[in-house]
Amino acid sequence: MTYCVGIDVDEGLVFAADTRTNASVDDVRVHRKLHVFEYPGQAVFVLMASGNLATTQLLVSRLQRDVEEQRTPNLRGLRHLFEVAEYVGALLVDSQVKCRDVEHGHDGVNTQATLILGGQIAGERPGLYMIYPLGNAISASPETPYLQIGESKYGKPILDRIIRPRTRLDDAARTAVVSLDSTIRSNLSVGLPLDLALVRRDELRIGGQLRLSGDSPLYADIHRNWAHRLEQAVAALPRFPWEQQA
Amino acid sequence: MTYCVGIDVDEGLVFAADTRTNASVDDVRVHRKLHVFEYPGQAVFVLMASGNLATTQLLVSRLQRDVEEQRTPNLRGLRHLFEVAEYVGALLVDSQVKCRDVEHGHDGVNTQATLILGGQIAGERPGLYMIYPLGNAISASPETPYLQIGESKYGKPILDRIIRPRTRLDDAARTAVVSLDSTIRSNLSVGLPLDLALVRRDELRIGGQLRLSGDSPLYADIHRNWAHRLEQAVAALPRFPWEQQA
Repeated sequence: MTYCVGIDVDEGLVFAADTRTNASVDDVRVHRKLHVFEYPGQAVFVLMASGNLATTQLLVSRLQRDVEEQRTPNLRGLRHLFEVAEYVGALLVDSQVKCRDVEHGHDGVNTQATLILGGQIAGERPGLYMIYPLGNAISASPETPYLQIGESKYGKPILDRIIRPRTRLDDAARTAVVSLDSTIRSNLSVGLPLDLALVRRDELRIGGQLRLSGDSPLYADIHRNWAHRLEQAVAALPRFPWEQQA
Repeated sequence: MTYCVGIDVDEGLVFAADTRTNASVDDVRVHRKLHVFEYPGQAVFVLMASGNLATTQLLVSRLQRDVEEQRTPNLRGLRHLFEVAEYVGALLVDSQVKCRDVEHGHDGVNTQATLILGGQIAGERPGLYMIYPLGNAISASPETPYLQIGESKYGKPILDRIIRPRTRLDDAARTAVVSLDSTIRSNLSVGLPLDLALVRRDELRIGGQLRLSGDSPLYADIHRNWAHRLEQAVAALPRFPWEQQA
């Protein structure tokens, strides 16, 4: 399984993903699911993937090749983010079919993948899309300023309570880390380390990138700090009628 | 769908359940899922149910009848909580079959239900069981001091972070309300009002019972207070390396 979350606030975009992949419970590995495509001053994209790893790795390799060989279309050549979503969606559908072909008709393997794609192209505002296995896409909106793929339920309540378009970008990133941390704590199929990337509006480059592992002091600090503050928050909630007034 | 959580801490037991039942998205109703069986000084039990409503209502009616008619076994007659779990489990299996019979062979209906049963019998410590559709049961333990049935993922992280055997009973109840509130906010199939019941160790009666609806001031207060404290907690988390030191 996987858990990735993308957040679209006024100040920019946040991307956070875990790195655990498993073919079964005794075949667990670490693979990067957050991929950066950076063309400073011109465009910046971040792609996160859940689903079949062969499909998503093939997709990423093809995206890079199309830019290097200046094929049409490619990530540097498109002028609108929705066109990039269409292009990536078409490539995703093709990669899913390709990965199934490789299996020589072994149809039991699910080669589907779901993507979160976000970024900014010069002249446009930043945007965030979810791309489905069929290649179609939906975008985040002010009412729903985040998108999730994979094991999304554990990490959803904190996003619902905190994330608004006016949330500060770094606070949105802290919320994303907490959302990942909650999921990792409650579900074995999502695991550390986690990758984090920020795109600040109109900078047209990556505004911050980080890998947090279990032994990184910042992660341990966030984890401990959060648990402590939640305990305080629970203890400070209103009293029930049967509790004596202090 | 449904969400119920039972918590077993040193000071006693907490039970919390939503009240939404739905046959489909346009057939949504409110039904009690938390049932109290109180025999002061002798024994107290709380039963929560997810699954087929006909099954669980039949089960509750039978439990009451067995006590009234002094049948063997019945809730007042058993001396150990694990025997009560066995008795309720057997009655659950029978109610599932009975509800299917009523359908005259209409096998498409799923009459299964899953239960959380907790309470205390004089002379024993309090206990908490999950009873599966097959009639078998597992109990909570110091390492896993809570049990959930229904739509459990949204409300799990807060329980994982807060609930320990030494957590105060009223704080455990506050955590249960937050766990319910998080689920209700993130998932349409779980809805207000919510029922809450407490059993304090060795009191052998209900130590507090409450129905919280959307317009009850206490619920609104907890909801608002929690959102506010979470925002503060996020803003107070450690800074990322790219943030300027204040």
